[in-house]
Amino acid sequence: MEKLEALRRLFPGQVDLSESERLRHGKDEGYPEEGEVLAVVYPESVADVQKALRFAREEGLAVIPFGAGTSLEGHLYPVQEAISLDFSRMNRLLEVRPEDFLCVVEPGLTRKALNEALKGTGLFFPVDPGADATLGGMAATNASGTTTVRYGGMRANVLALQVVLANGEVLELGRGVRKTSAGYDLKDLFIGSEGTLGIITRLTLRLHPLPEHIHTLRVFFPRVEEAAEASYKVMASGLPVARLELLDELALRALNRYLQAGFPERPALFLEFHSSTREALEAESALALEIMREAGALKVEAAKTEEERRRQWEARHQAYWALVHLFPGHRFVITDVAVPLSRLPEMVRYAQGLLEEMGLTGNILGHVGDGNFHTLVPILPQDYPKAEAYAEALVRKALELGGTCTAEHGVGLRKKKYLPLEHGAALELMRKLKDLLDPEGLLNPGKVLDTPPSSRYS
Amino acid sequence: MEKLEALRRLFPGQVDLSESERLRHGKDEGYPEEGEVLAVVYPESVADVQKALRFAREEGLAVIPFGAGTSLEGHLYPVQEAISLDFSRMNRLLEVRPEDFLCVVEPGLTRKALNEALKGTGLFFPVDPGADATLGGMAATNASGTTTVRYGGMRANVLALQVVLANGEVLELGRGVRKTSAGYDLKDLFIGSEGTLGIITRLTLRLHPLPEHIHTLRVFFPRVEEAAEASYKVMASGLPVARLELLDELALRALNRYLQAGFPERPALFLEFHSSTREALEAESALALEIMREAGALKVEAAKTEEERRRQWEARHQAYWALVHLFPGHRFVITDVAVPLSRLPEMVRYAQGLLEEMGLTGNILGHVGDGNFHTLVPILPQDYPKAEAYAEALVRKALELGGTCTAEHGVGLRKKKYLPLEHGAALELMRKLKDLLDPEGLLNPGKVLDTPPSSRYS
Repeated sequence: MEKLEALRRLFPGQVDLSESERLRHGKDEGYPEEGEVLAVVYPESVADVQKALRFAREEGLAVIPFGAGTSLEGHLYPVQEAISLDFSRMNRLLEVRPEDFLCVVEPGLTRKALNEALKGTGLFFPVDPGADATLGGMAATNASGTTTVRYGGMRANVLALQVVLANGEVLELGRGVRKTSAGYDLKDLFIGSEGTLGIITRLTLRLHPLPEHIHTLRVFFPRVEEAAEASYKVMASGLPVARLELLDELALRALNRYLQAGFPERPALFLEFHSSTREALEAESALALEIMREAGALKVEAAKTEEERRRQWEARHQAYWALVHLFPGHRFVITDVAVPLSRLPEMVRYAQGLLEEMGLTGNILGHVGDGNFHTLVPILPQDYPKAEAYAEALVRKALELGGTCTAEHGVGLRKKKYLPLEHGAALELMRKLKDLLDPEGLLNPGKVLDTPPSSRYS
Repeated sequence: MEKLEALRRLFPGQVDLSESERLRHGKDEGYPEEGEVLAVVYPESVADVQKALRFAREEGLAVIPFGAGTSLEGHLYPVQEAISLDFSRMNRLLEVRPEDFLCVVEPGLTRKALNEALKGTGLFFPVDPGADATLGGMAATNASGTTTVRYGGMRANVLALQVVLANGEVLELGRGVRKTSAGYDLKDLFIGSEGTLGIITRLTLRLHPLPEHIHTLRVFFPRVEEAAEASYKVMASGLPVARLELLDELALRALNRYLQAGFPERPALFLEFHSSTREALEAESALALEIMREAGALKVEAAKTEEERRRQWEARHQAYWALVHLFPGHRFVITDVAVPLSRLPEMVRYAQGLLEEMGLTGNILGHVGDGNFHTLVPILPQDYPKAEAYAEALVRKALELGGTCTAEHGVGLRKKKYLPLEHGAALELMRKLKDLLDPEGLLNPGKVLDTPPSSRYS
């Protein structure tokens, strides 16, 4: 294609047209269809991003930003002719200011690489989705993780963004301060916009002091219901939990096989407390244990070493891959509802009952301290409609309980159908914002919102 | 005026045309000019708000929402013919769901009335600007307060909003959950928009468990510099402080007179720790004290009773009125910069030096745990330009250090001039959002952004 030759000339050494790369950049970890972008461009600067956008505008191509490819909702699948902007060459840690509890990064830096680079500063960046995602991608989907119950998700931990708009303009949104009320909150409009309103080219992130004292527990229950109930009671006590994760029996069975771990195969809560003094830590952990024992806990294990602690959370983060390993040849439908805190036990019961009723195997795990959990449903191709019906029923129930269809994975292609029910008339305003910021529908079209019939790129 | 008669017929028993009320609704607590609205309407429902907006559209009048009248930046001053929507009749607590840590309120409810009504639930709403503001007004200006260092400001504590747009449409923004990534973050766009994008008619608020154990301290220092430095060191230690406020000598002198309090008249930090266990609390307070003694603390007082604790924070909240009392016949220019945490001591030193250099008396106090402080400069009319020059120099210095011109008071009329410097090209996007949501410039015109020449209402 002639235009791809022009692209190669425009970005010498920064374009990959190989089929394998075009395929790799057209899919994420969750979407069932295989997509293929026309070309992969590796920007090395903001100017490169502007240049790529200009090229795309002129050639009538869509642009899809690519981080680590670990999103789950079809965020990377091209619904029309598109080039992928792969940020792996814009992965520098530009500045660390420990004294201000902040750092400035390029969007292609991953969360693990950032925390590795922060070693020795006494600070860390808390948001930890399962995957080693890029910070740009995490901001684009408003990601969160196991520590969000204490430290907040991306929205709370991104202080400022640099974005490039569809028209090539570069904007600086937000400031590196803990509070500001200086006009409209544009920064949060771009966080969670999934590459559809602008392209993130720099992030100022809030860092937190590494806790001096950490206590990490695994608490096992007879049934998932009791574990969910106990998690609610711990939250209701006002204890400053830093992590509060539910894992069901299946998750632990999968992890035992995948990691040769020796976890009891019982529904469990994985908890952690962070504190600046040992006395505070001990008092808080003791109270939490008392609450959980009253709620029916069978067994408690505490991580005795930093290594054991690290392994426990690594196991939690590996749960998805452990499941994948346990069900070779299967695809996964993954749900991501959140509900108001007190409805979590009911929601978990509903999910379990529905899986059983529909004859589906499903693994329930998640961030119960935030009222959020996932179901991972391994399926063979013929069962996809059934699994989707399960996912849809779960969303409808969550919305009925005042919840949300997606707590942290975002909308992508897969959850668009739920937005009318969740947002009502406000969805039309989202559409107007998209039209305002990207009138030609150039930026990651079809994600979050349907591509309008008027789009040049549809 | 004929149209005002029509308004009265439209809202029987809900319109006040008296001069005193028209004047009271045309000014806030900080803006030097006296304004006067054409009429005050007291909506009692969302339908009333829609009806008032329709009337205003038809008659070519602007609409200014009014909470408690405690804003500071000219938010209520009518720059053109306007009606005031006073929300004092929409002040109901609609729902409390302690089990979900949330409540639903009408915008006219004040923060103190809410916390009074929450007594017995074990929960509280933390955001506490000095004034007993309405929750609608607090959301509109993205207010914060003494507990923001621990619990966040309005943005972190408003889960969902109902707003009426200029065209009368009612939107529901956000959900009553701790996390959501379901599309664009419209809720945060309206928080801090100062009534210029839509009118808030209902809020879902996040509540927090009342701390079981509280420790409240007053720590006195030889100079403001040492107090600012100590506050930074406490923050840098990662201690979970719940409040961390700086008061200078002048503030304490004013408070001693106004409240017949017996505070030592020395620069002070007022601190508080909240904890779910006594042991945690004691360990944290002890560590904080050690840090502050090393940083030069002269004297420490602890609140021994709940009554003493209450009086201490009441005093902090009364500091503004105590100053007003100490300088009869004066007006006040109030600054509201925030800077990255480590620059706070430098910023405070700069402010002090500048006051001295310019021959101004000024009181420095504020939320130093968030890098935010205020200067209250009492002035006689002829000194207004000088005080404004001081405020402007302070903003320029704060922006130079990466800070913001307003951390929590908002923009209103007074801080518009600083936005180009703070936001650059992003300001143009704010203007476009305003045009999209309020194409005729009906909603609180002239606030945050200049009224465009095209506005029907300018």
